[in-house]
Amino acid sequence: MAFKIGLLGLGTVGTGVAKILLDPVGRNPLIKEITIERVGVRSLSKTRDISLSPDLFTTTLEEIVTDPDIDIVVELLGGLEPSRSLILKAIENGKHIVTANKAVIARYGEEIYTAANEAGVYVLLEGAVGGGIPVIKPLKQSLGANRINSIIGIVNGTTNYILTQMTQEKADFDDVLAEAQKLGYAEADPTADVDGLDAADKIAILASLGFGGRVKREDVYCEGIRQVSAVDINYADRLGFIIKLLAIAKGSKGDASDTLELRVHPTLVPKTHPLASINGVYNAILVEGEPLGQVMFFGRGAGEGPTASAVVSDIMNIVAILSSGGDSKTLEPLLTCTHQHYCNLTPIEALETRFYARFLCRDVPGVIGHLGTSFGKHRVSLESVVQIGFQDNLAEIVVVTHNVKEGNFRQALSEIESLEAIHSIPSILRVL
Amino acid sequence: MAFKIGLLGLGTVGTGVAKILLDPVGRNPLIKEITIERVGVRSLSKTRDISLSPDLFTTTLEEIVTDPDIDIVVELLGGLEPSRSLILKAIENGKHIVTANKAVIARYGEEIYTAANEAGVYVLLEGAVGGGIPVIKPLKQSLGANRINSIIGIVNGTTNYILTQMTQEKADFDDVLAEAQKLGYAEADPTADVDGLDAADKIAILASLGFGGRVKREDVYCEGIRQVSAVDINYADRLGFIIKLLAIAKGSKGDASDTLELRVHPTLVPKTHPLASINGVYNAILVEGEPLGQVMFFGRGAGEGPTASAVVSDIMNIVAILSSGGDSKTLEPLLTCTHQHYCNLTPIEALETRFYARFLCRDVPGVIGHLGTSFGKHRVSLESVVQIGFQDNLAEIVVVTHNVKEGNFRQALSEIESLEAIHSIPSILRVL
Repeated sequence: MAFKIGLLGLGTVGTGVAKILLDPVGRNPLIKEITIERVGVRSLSKTRDISLSPDLFTTTLEEIVTDPDIDIVVELLGGLEPSRSLILKAIENGKHIVTANKAVIARYGEEIYTAANEAGVYVLLEGAVGGGIPVIKPLKQSLGANRINSIIGIVNGTTNYILTQMTQEKADFDDVLAEAQKLGYAEADPTADVDGLDAADKIAILASLGFGGRVKREDVYCEGIRQVSAVDINYADRLGFIIKLLAIAKGSKGDASDTLELRVHPTLVPKTHPLASINGVYNAILVEGEPLGQVMFFGRGAGEGPTASAVVSDIMNIVAILSSGGDSKTLEPLLTCTHQHYCNLTPIEALETRFYARFLCRDVPGVIGHLGTSFGKHRVSLESVVQIGFQDNLAEIVVVTHNVKEGNFRQALSEIESLEAIHSIPSILRVL
Repeated sequence: MAFKIGLLGLGTVGTGVAKILLDPVGRNPLIKEITIERVGVRSLSKTRDISLSPDLFTTTLEEIVTDPDIDIVVELLGGLEPSRSLILKAIENGKHIVTANKAVIARYGEEIYTAANEAGVYVLLEGAVGGGIPVIKPLKQSLGANRINSIIGIVNGTTNYILTQMTQEKADFDDVLAEAQKLGYAEADPTADVDGLDAADKIAILASLGFGGRVKREDVYCEGIRQVSAVDINYADRLGFIIKLLAIAKGSKGDASDTLELRVHPTLVPKTHPLASINGVYNAILVEGEPLGQVMFFGRGAGEGPTASAVVSDIMNIVAILSSGGDSKTLEPLLTCTHQHYCNLTPIEALETRFYARFLCRDVPGVIGHLGTSFGKHRVSLESVVQIGFQDNLAEIVVVTHNVKEGNFRQALSEIESLEAIHSIPSILRVL
């Protein structure tokens, strides 16, 4: 049996997908049953790193999603539009969908999955999170027997590269970002990466799968890494931590009080934690469940090869189901998303976590007393108060708290900010 | 729809499986469709940590594998017989099989899969390798688009615990083994673990999946950790290595010369390698493929919870397929094993690797010259020669080679052994 795919987009990942399909030797034999029927691109004249017959190309993407010969539409355009409209139109025309587009799924997943379930087609997205690391399918299938307690990931390679360089080279954010842009690890407009938006898209998807409910992307609390300074990385190091941009989903699935924390922010990670040693452009996702305990998935989170591997595995998965299931119209339940309810999210003020804060102050002995008083008043208990350095005649005091309610901590801070002896509070970070 | 399972064995893992199935809240909704129909045990009078109706129990395991009401037989007896016969009989009776029994699959996989493919039933075994770490299914599915270059795993928790303790506590093998037995991390008869047999079973299974061919279990080259001494761990540390028991499958899938190395042995792993930091009872499996690059899977490799999680995921997987595929008799190709040919294994003498060897000798300056000559004669090139310590008036010399053919290295060693100045060669280890 042969299955025909239409590729929307032939950029880095699309080229990687085509390369795998055109060179099947030594791969799963199912690959030989997949043929590229059409390729939708923006420009027909661009020279490309792949030899495909010119007849396959079109700039009219609509033609692909409505082509009656095509079984599976592979959307690799990225961005919200026209991806969303093309995916919906393809579904309407009975095509199965494979995509690596986290943004469109994080924002329009509900609309897309509702349409897909009605039409009886699959929408698979292994490439959307963690590049070639198998994590979407394991969350749906292999880990499904568990009550998931938490999913904590380093899911953005650009920011992990930047933080790793800042840590290892003791360099500043702006310099490392400029270097990352030169190397192609960061885009000209780095907003989606450095402000945590890409990581937020991904954790929204992972949380929805792991916790079995819908998640509104705009409800993910999100802080990027622009405010992380070399000074804080250095203090963190002395206190036994590494600073990482973590995407965190933490809940109590199956519990009556069933709430979910969903957040992306730079975090002090203890050096002994499995995520502390994930460096450079690598990604890792740590899942904790009952009765499983911890499992971690690690690999390159982006790039032509890894993401193409994930996309082709999704195509193969659909082909495998189609070639065995006959024309049954019942979807395989572990490959579909049928969540009806929304996860009940914990507002950030109600979050309980440890904090790290750095204060610049004029009068050290007085300040430590004031800090203690203000924190105590708001039930913030301190794990350590350290006075380490000086900056421009101002003393630097670093505080690490025990687990506290974020709301209480913020109230204490706003009181502390108004103290005469406090010059400023340059950094506030959460601690894992 | 309800699906009925028969459990063969209600030990640690069986109890874990029953606990998950009896407590479905917060888990994948598919769990609710699975009921325990029969439980086969050795003794009906044993008190158990689970409340199941006494009517379910039987000591006649044959009854379960022939029971017409049962859809899936879950084999958790371990060992070769009666597991093999019961699995075959269950298949003959049209039951799907879920097992965590690496030994029976590594040895009788060919017979079992041939029977299963003829009968049109699934045999799933996620629990057989890496406990709750999803690795079997990712190898079959998510990584199938790749040409696998290597699978390198720490797949035995007992030996990893022992080596970790020897490294961290500078303790000797016998003491740590005794302690591990007291803690329940090692069995009274530790042979299967410490001699590498369990790891060999597991790498035989992983290699067969990753490289798409049959593997004869007896062809896996296997050395255990009994000969690893605290002295070598210490020297390895000074040279920048950690000693780990690695299970290695390395090949060139898709290549014309298509050969596969398959081996289990203690190995010096560079401290910067992802596997170097996997400590205690944890397992990790590192897969390298084209175009994927490296991915690593990490978690607890054994125990009630993790293995039960894997077993239930397999049951769910079969239930998902059955509930969507109607009564189609075509198996889903990514869930089955249909390899017809045997992998072409590289004999250990033809292996190319780096070596570490420790010599005890009487006359240092003379010996270094002789070592150089003998190694040179057999085309063994040395990366470093270090004289570090003394033992009972004998000097210790440690040698690390460049990549050499194992056969050449062995020839050089047998020549060196006969040298007057050489007292003995207490350790020979491979280097990753």
